[in-house]
Amino acid sequence: MLENKSMVMEVAVLNVIPGRELAFEKDFKLAGKYISSIEGYGGHTLKKCLEKQNQYVLLVHWESLENHEIGYRQSEAYVEWKNLLHHYYDPFPTVEHYETVV
Amino acid sequence: MLENKSMVMEVAVLNVIPGRELAFEKDFKLAGKYISSIEGYGGHTLKKCLEKQNQYVLLVHWESLENHEIGYRQSEAYVEWKNLLHHYYDPFPTVEHYETVV
Repeated sequence: MLENKSMVMEVAVLNVIPGRELAFEKDFKLAGKYISSIEGYGGHTLKKCLEKQNQYVLLVHWESLENHEIGYRQSEAYVEWKNLLHHYYDPFPTVEHYETVV
Repeated sequence: MLENKSMVMEVAVLNVIPGRELAFEKDFKLAGKYISSIEGYGGHTLKKCLEKQNQYVLLVHWESLENHEIGYRQSEAYVEWKNLLHHYYDPFPTVEHYETVV
């Protein structure tokens, strides 16, 4: 990730329907082109939990909150992202944003 | 953070007792020397939630799970870290570890 301390970090803990993890990971890789096409995008990573088989965390760096909440979520690219990925989640994830303290 | 894709990332969402946020941030900065002294430590960051006033996320990179769970948690440095920070949390946080997929 091309992290910059002034960036906002989107954090989402993702719980994938058990048994669908490998298909999710494959589709997640395909979906990367949609999120990375957006203005203000600064990199993302998907990480898999060592303690819980079907849990992941998605971290995305954005130049600003608006780049994510308006620029991305109102884009055609986000429709593609949703269609590829949202059916894997149960429950549907909570997304929060963070700014760097240390 | 000096992230390396083979590293394990510790993730802890921290809820600080409301009103204690600034004292927590000050003590967190002091505590950095304890965690960074441990073998296998690869960098850490504390981020503050934009949606929830008293919520933070701590991300720490470790060379291995054992560097955190044994090397750090059984150290004198961890006793100092706990004494400085653990009284700020309510509820006490869940800590999980992740490995990189994408």
